[in-house]
Parts: sequence; C-alpha cells; structure tokens
Amino acid sequence: MAKSPETEHPIVAYGWGAKDTSGVFSPLKFSRRATGENDVQFKVLYCGVCHSDLHMAKNEWGLSHYPIVPGHEIVGEVTEVGAKVKKVNVGDKVGVGCLVGSCRDCGQCKSDLENYCPKQVQTYSWVYTDGTITYGGYSNLMVADEHFIIRWPDNFPLDIGAPLLCAGVTTYSPLRHFGLDKPGLSVGIVGLGGLGHVAVKFAKAFGTKVTVISTSLSKKKEAIENFGADEFLVSRDQEQMQAAAGTLDGILDTVSAVHPIMPLINLLKPNGKLILVGAPEKPLELPVFPLITGRKSISGSAIGGIKETQEMIDFAAKHNILPDVEMIPIDYLNTAMDRLAKSDVKYRFVIDVEKSLKPE
Amino acid sequence: MAKSPETEHPIVAYGWGAKDTSGVFSPLKFSRRATGENDVQFKVLYCGVCHSDLHMAKNEWGLSHYPIVPGHEIVGEVTEVGAKVKKVNVGDKVGVGCLVGSCRDCGQCKSDLENYCPKQVQTYSWVYTDGTITYGGYSNLMVADEHFIIRWPDNFPLDIGAPLLCAGVTTYSPLRHFGLDKPGLSVGIVGLGGLGHVAVKFAKAFGTKVTVISTSLSKKKEAIENFGADEFLVSRDQEQMQAAAGTLDGILDTVSAVHPIMPLINLLKPNGKLILVGAPEKPLELPVFPLITGRKSISGSAIGGIKETQEMIDFAAKHNILPDVEMIPIDYLNTAMDRLAKSDVKYRFVIDVEKSLKPE
Repeated sequence: MAKSPETEHPIVAYGWGAKDTSGVFSPLKFSRRATGENDVQFKVLYCGVCHSDLHMAKNEWGLSHYPIVPGHEIVGEVTEVGAKVKKVNVGDKVGVGCLVGSCRDCGQCKSDLENYCPKQVQTYSWVYTDGTITYGGYSNLMVADEHFIIRWPDNFPLDIGAPLLCAGVTTYSPLRHFGLDKPGLSVGIVGLGGLGHVAVKFAKAFGTKVTVISTSLSKKKEAIENFGADEFLVSRDQEQMQAAAGTLDGILDTVSAVHPIMPLINLLKPNGKLILVGAPEKPLELPVFPLITGRKSISGSAIGGIKETQEMIDFAAKHNILPDVEMIPIDYLNTAMDRLAKSDVKYRFVIDVEKSLKPE
Repeated sequence: MAKSPETEHPIVAYGWGAKDTSGVFSPLKFSRRATGENDVQFKVLYCGVCHSDLHMAKNEWGLSHYPIVPGHEIVGEVTEVGAKVKKVNVGDKVGVGCLVGSCRDCGQCKSDLENYCPKQVQTYSWVYTDGTITYGGYSNLMVADEHFIIRWPDNFPLDIGAPLLCAGVTTYSPLRHFGLDKPGLSVGIVGLGGLGHVAVKFAKAFGTKVTVISTSLSKKKEAIENFGADEFLVSRDQEQMQAAAGTLDGILDTVSAVHPIMPLINLLKPNGKLILVGAPEKPLELPVFPLITGRKSISGSAIGGIKETQEMIDFAAKHNILPDVEMIPIDYLNTAMDRLAKSDVKYRFVIDVEKSLKPE
C-alpha cells in the first residue's frame, strides 16, 4: 500500500495544491525527505506560476499524480546542506527549475542535457528515484540534489527573477542552440505571453533584430516600447505578413494553442528555422512543399539543462533581464488560475510564498 | 502573340513530350536557342526518368507549360561551345540536372545554393531569362549556360550514371548539409525507390550505419545484399518499430505520398533530424510533443546547388556509386510512365536517347 504523502517522509511540509482533476487549489500537508548527503534543503521565498501548472493541476496531459503541489520556478534561501554538498552553503540564495533528477549517466546527461534524459525527474507530480512523488514550489520548503540547484546571482531580484527558471531557460536555450543568438540576425517571436516577453528580452540582449508576431495589435506598444522589439506583425493581417515574407532567420513560437504554421514558415528566409516551445494538444498541419523549396526546419525544444540554466541566470543578471510579473499571495491562486486560462496576466504571476503561506 | 516552340529559336530540335494534361507522350518538334557566348550545346545520349516528369506531364502541380518536354537527368557529348566558355570543350562528356538558370546575384546564388534562388530556372517547362519556355532531356540536343553544366568524370558510365543528376544530388545534399555523413552515425532511409536506393549507397559510402524503412518486407533482401543496408524495418510492424525507437541520428524520407511521420520521429534519438525530400500534395500531421521532448527537427531539402552537384558526381565516381536502372527506348515512354505510377521499376528508367530517338 502506498504511504500517505503526509507521513512517508520525516520532514513536515505544507503548501497549496489540487486534490483532483477539478484543479481547485487549497492548503494541504505533505512531507519532504530528510536532507541527504548530496541534498540541499531551502526555504521557499517565491514561486512563479507557469501555464503548465494549470494543465497539470487539471491533469490535462494525463500525467498528474494527486495530490499535486505544482511550482517549478522556485527561489529561496538554503537552510541545510548534506555532508557532500559543495555548490552552496546555508544562507545562500538558490533556485530550482523544472528538474530535480535524471540518470546522470546517459549520453544526454553526460552532455549536460538532463532535460532530454529519458529518466529525468520533473520537479512536481513525477516519480522520484526513491519511488515517491515529487512536490513543487507552492510550498514552504524544498529539498533537491545539489546537481539540480541553481546558484542565484548576487544582487539579482529573487521575486521578479523566479520565472526565469522555466520561462527564461525555455526561450534562452533554443535561441542559443539553434544559433539565433548572433548580432544582426532577424528573429521572430510568436506570442507575447509569459515565455514570449522574456524571449524578446533575451533576443535583444543577443543583438538580434526582433519581430514580435501576435494575433492582435493590442500588445504592439508594449512590445516595442517596454521590451525593445524592433517590429510587430499581426499574424491575421495577410498583407503585412506577405510583405514580411522571407525576412526572418528564425522564429521562436511560444504559442501552445493549435495554430497555423504555414504563415510562419513563409516569414522565414531559405534555411530558416521555426522552433516550437509550446505544445498544442492536437497535431498541427505540416505543409511540406515550403520546407523543401527553402530547406527550412521545424524543431522543438524543452526547457534547458542544468548547466545551461545556470548560464542563463548569470546572463540575465549581467544584462538585467527580468520578466514582468504580478506578485500574488498564495490564497489568490484559484483566481490567478482563472485569469491565466484567459491569458489575463502581464506576464507572469509570482507567488509571494514567504509572506502569504501559513501552516494550517 | 507567343511564338511557336518550333520557330522561336534558330536551332531545330525534336524529342518526345506531352501536349496536354493527358500526359500522353508522343514525338514533337521544337527549337533551341543558338549557342551564346557562355553556352554549351551538347548531343543528348541518355536521360533519366524522374517521378516528377510524370507529375509535370499531367500538370499535377499546376506548374506545367504545354507542350512539355521533360527530363532533368541529362548526359551527353559537347557539340559546340560559346566564345567565353572555359569549363568544357567540344567532345567532352557533360550533364545537366534540374537547373539551367538562376539570378547569380542573390545571397543563395552567392552561397552556391542556386537551388534555393527565388529566380531559379528549372530545366523544363519553366520560363527562361529570355521569356521562352525551357525543354528538357527527352530530346536530341541541349543548350545551357556553362555555369549549369556538370563535367562528367572520366571512365564513369554515362548511361547508368544519368539519374545521379537529380536522384543523386537530392539525397547527397541533405545527408551532407544536415551532418548525416559522419562514420558511426545511424541513418534511416525511408522508401526504397529511385531516390532511396541511391541514398542508401551514399550513406554507406559516408560510413554510416544504414537502416532502410519500408512499408513491406519485399525489398529487404535487395536492400541488404545489393545496396549494403545494415538493417531493415517494416514501418507497419509496430513491434519492430517500437524496438528501434530512439536509435537513429537522422532519417532521410524519400516518400512523396501522404504518410504518418510520428513513427519516424519516434525512431530518432534526442536531437535527431527527419529530412523530407518527397513532397506530398497534402499537409502531413505534425505531432509537436515528441519534437519538443527530444529537441527533434523536421526539415526539407530540394536537389542541390551546381557546385555540390559536381562534388556529388565526383564523389560517386570515386566510390563507384551508381543507380540501378532499366534502360528503355524512347518509344517505351508511355508504358514506362504507367509502370512508374505503380512504382514498378528497379529503380530508375533511363532513356537511351541516342539509339532510340529519331527525327520524325
């Protein structure tokens, strides 16, 4: 018989989670493992709210284990370290993103690509190496193997910065990997949400010319004036899209709803790359002719490895790249999720865990 | 009023072509331009029959100009050269592939990628720079700008080798460009037809481990014993496909019928590449999740540039890579096209133009 989440581990923990597919959040108690020799325990200060938290709370991907405590944009202060830990000390500021485990032995892990390890362990609602279920950052404390701990840069805001641990690396990694980080290149960013607005900031910091592609004009002013985008295209404006045909070296598409990709492929130069980081539930329509006649590519990319996440956060600190966030208390979660489902947030909710989470 | 194909140019020419969308072939007369100062005129000896010749004869892509004289795997012997021609001399053996023109000035052309030049001129049924329609190699003679002339390697068979000018470079180019030419890599080839069987030979010459993926077992023996493939997968055998999941670094898909690509994506390792060189008329279904979770890519590729075509033919000569062909007289064309439509050919028809084409 499976042990109760409240008693299977020795350390009392509490947070907010969903108990079933209604996805309704309420306070709950669970437990964390004792700090092992390679582990880092930390007090959670802030945690970003990712759109995938909503999908997972409602089991929309069929992957969820209940009760589920989401949160994979977690920052805090180290409270205890295991005997063999070298990366951080008690009192240090740290973060944990989407991963808390991987096999550490496969080709992917050895290439610092734990995010593509078939045995990766995600930060919440996943089976850990000891067979227990993982719980995320909507909670008072975290324990993780030091390998998966990100050192927080000095003087870099913990609260606003938290979403970089998922939204940041999810956009930074493909821009780097697919070579869209060279000054002078023209890069398109599709969708100006939690991921997209951070992508614009990274792409600008890399020195590229950035075109935001959005379904409506409403975000044009903000994209250009606040985030530094150079151009703005309304994807439904066929005349505008046609005039921009063949002008982009690459496009990062952050939209997770089903949408047509043919108009995006048309925006690419020959050899251009369309990179998808949003995962629509249904297959998209893939027109083959335009791929062939322009040697164009469509790729996917998922978060980033641990080494790259550290590199991303250090780069963000150096270039002062920070998401635009709305800070919320944890008891606002159900309202926040309703608003998130309607994309009614600029551009990421962050839970002020330290101030608002109380033991029941 | 448009000039008659028979009289618009000074040089009398004849061949076999289709006069309308029935796609029925019959003898016809037309004309070629006089040999310009940069031009090479040559007597056609052999011409391969590509599946696109069939599509174009019936206007299945909506691109055809009638009368149409197909043929873009053309080899022959030089009969006349313009005053400025340096590449070849009278009596030399030469070839022309899919291209006879491009702007020579754009970024693609300057990168030796005439095949992606927006103003490229294809070898037949295309509008040439002088406004006339191009005619292909199912004819007694050819004239082309020397830039688009391929020097035929000494002691390399003209008859069997002709299909390399399209089928060869169409498979050689993406294997090279996408880095699937490294010894030790595992490469899949989908479809063992005119393109696929040549792809297997190139991939083996590059030192890769080659897996042929086909809809039926019928070609297994030939793939392994004659073409040197290492493995053979039947794409409809789910057990076999599942056992091979995550084993291939890249896949070259030569199938032009609509087909599922999800099973192919599953065969790829993380970072694996699926490259499409066959163009189905309808969009394929693109599942996004497996692209994202494995950072996999789907790309297209079209023939190759002129420099690369020369490199390919020189490589083929050095490594004795030759297609398997069935030689036919030109008056067999209608039967050949019927058989081609049923994939009833091993693996490419080549017309013996010199011996079988007579002036009317």
